[in-house]
Amino acid sequence: MEQKSSKSLQKLSELHRQHRGLINIMPLQTGGMLTEAAKKALIEFGDGYSVCDFCLGSLCDITNPPVREFVHELLPQFLGCEVATLTYGARDGIFMVMHSLAKPGDSIVVDGNRHYTTVVAAERAGLNVIEVASSGYPEFRIDVNDYIPLIEKHTPKLILLTYPDGNYGNIPNAKRLGEIAQEYDIPYIVNGAYAVGRMPVSMRELGADFIIGSGHKSMASAGPCGVLGMKKKWEEIVLRKSGTYSNKEVELLGCTLRGVPLITLMASFPYVKERIDHWNEQVSKAQWFSGELEKLGFHQLGEKPHRHDLLHFETPTFYDISKHVRERGYFLYKELKERGIWGPQPGLTKAFKLSTFAANQEQLKFVINSFNAILSKYS
Amino acid sequence: MEQKSSKSLQKLSELHRQHRGLINIMPLQTGGMLTEAAKKALIEFGDGYSVCDFCLGSLCDITNPPVREFVHELLPQFLGCEVATLTYGARDGIFMVMHSLAKPGDSIVVDGNRHYTTVVAAERAGLNVIEVASSGYPEFRIDVNDYIPLIEKHTPKLILLTYPDGNYGNIPNAKRLGEIAQEYDIPYIVNGAYAVGRMPVSMRELGADFIIGSGHKSMASAGPCGVLGMKKKWEEIVLRKSGTYSNKEVELLGCTLRGVPLITLMASFPYVKERIDHWNEQVSKAQWFSGELEKLGFHQLGEKPHRHDLLHFETPTFYDISKHVRERGYFLYKELKERGIWGPQPGLTKAFKLSTFAANQEQLKFVINSFNAILSKYS
Repeated sequence: MEQKSSKSLQKLSELHRQHRGLINIMPLQTGGMLTEAAKKALIEFGDGYSVCDFCLGSLCDITNPPVREFVHELLPQFLGCEVATLTYGARDGIFMVMHSLAKPGDSIVVDGNRHYTTVVAAERAGLNVIEVASSGYPEFRIDVNDYIPLIEKHTPKLILLTYPDGNYGNIPNAKRLGEIAQEYDIPYIVNGAYAVGRMPVSMRELGADFIIGSGHKSMASAGPCGVLGMKKKWEEIVLRKSGTYSNKEVELLGCTLRGVPLITLMASFPYVKERIDHWNEQVSKAQWFSGELEKLGFHQLGEKPHRHDLLHFETPTFYDISKHVRERGYFLYKELKERGIWGPQPGLTKAFKLSTFAANQEQLKFVINSFNAILSKYS
Repeated sequence: MEQKSSKSLQKLSELHRQHRGLINIMPLQTGGMLTEAAKKALIEFGDGYSVCDFCLGSLCDITNPPVREFVHELLPQFLGCEVATLTYGARDGIFMVMHSLAKPGDSIVVDGNRHYTTVVAAERAGLNVIEVASSGYPEFRIDVNDYIPLIEKHTPKLILLTYPDGNYGNIPNAKRLGEIAQEYDIPYIVNGAYAVGRMPVSMRELGADFIIGSGHKSMASAGPCGVLGMKKKWEEIVLRKSGTYSNKEVELLGCTLRGVPLITLMASFPYVKERIDHWNEQVSKAQWFSGELEKLGFHQLGEKPHRHDLLHFETPTFYDISKHVRERGYFLYKELKERGIWGPQPGLTKAFKLSTFAANQEQLKFVINSFNAILSKYS
């Protein structure tokens, strides 16, 4: 026991990341890779609570580093909202809103492509989740007009749309749902975990009440880290202050990001703000990449033509190979890793998700050629 | 507007920490300073979601990096508990337990020295907070026997003790409260945000049901980051799985620390585990320091002799000076900073908290001499 424990401790003092420096096409990670400014800030503010040197009681009001300006000026402008705050991540922002606006037993209507955490957050808040079905295989489109009959039937306290979803990268008509939300006067959350920080998105233009962003998913930040934007009218409900401590928000338990992920979010922000202007190039790159992979016999699921870097492919040829090789499903991960590529979840061969967001065209060409070479090797 | 915004963005790309490298006696920070191993890990795992390369659906079960072993073997052993999990910090662990074990309208009994977040977490969970009064000025001691009449009167769903508290660094008789909790069969939370990682503490020995630790406060970690230990019997309540997603814990919204603070917690752990063995030296150092400052006319609040590095002093002489100088209360912060010392919150002179945990005796001698020199300069 003692010996095992000392071996375990030894391991902890030598933590290495196997995938560091590889071509990254792993959808969870391509939007969260740090900028050089963020890497420097990591060291500068790494120590616990070092963000809070000049705190006067409220994280979002710290002026050095300039959290106040970031949260109260830059973020609202960026999100197209009136009030913004910091969260631990998209799921935490969603829970905060649910917990503030709905009571146990209430219903909410969400898209069928929602992230699993939407369901878990609703469960934590005691809410009934009603889902708008997608069009199913192979495109899995959400028609936001399908919210209408469910709204009429269930009178939900909230509606939520995942924009885009994390499974297919589909971009539903969030603006039309904004009109529906307004017509029925129901608070409307846009979960933009894969939008905010990658592509232009404005809460105001979509007609939403809340917009959710993820720092580690799409804003070039360390995790856990997220942003929540809202209309001014929700501030006193979602950001209500404690009855005992008048400068502490109840849903934030006083403060959230009291640490270095916030600093990386801030340090990367100028770059993130700029990169969304190149979204059209990102979409072209994704479409080209998808087309090339389809030539190899892959089949892209989700909307076509695709409008996001997150792509889901069926890859029956890899699956066939996996049935006959010693490593089974892991052969693909191993082959790609040997070529310096990190993408499909280890073990998957039948279908997997990729993201073209962080790789340039040359790297993606190398990925395409590598897939081709692996297919040839085993055929 | 455009010009202002570009200036704001410029600031974000050059974030510097003024207090980096100073002698740190700031109580929020002395236990959260990173080890060299943690600093290396920061860079290695800085990118968003890089902890999750080999996730199979549950953060605490990731084997590379060895999160699983850390959470399921090392942490329970370290905390003296049966089951452990990861949280965003102490406040988040406390809320999780409250939200799982109590319903809106229920009562809880807590010590009068509790952190503000205990009250805010209870408010978020809709609970009534009943406080056990301390002995008041100057020692502010909590007599845990005072829980008994309040338990009998209010039949609380939970009791909580802050061990030690963050205002005076008092160490109440947590073990005796464990006996009381058992006698009345009430779940008992020890908030060890200033204990776990600094001093030896065992949930089992204290007879508690839950133990709370803070990574950024006392475990040499980046924030936000914490740990929660519990008896096995609470696992299926606090760590209950989603009805829809059988591998996702509802109170954790699936996963919590999906980012680099977890890696710093793990990388620093071997050092943290070792440093608690030197707790007696820490206590001696704190007592010596307190004695020296009292010779300068400071008055230590809280228990005497003191048994923790967190010390609260009344400093009437500094307050008198502040009334006559141009910088008012900020003169002390400025004088100390010029001498390379970071401790009392900027603006405070009447009373402030210090921690001797991270400074060695030589550095503390320099602090004492500096206080003395500042007093002489203005007298």
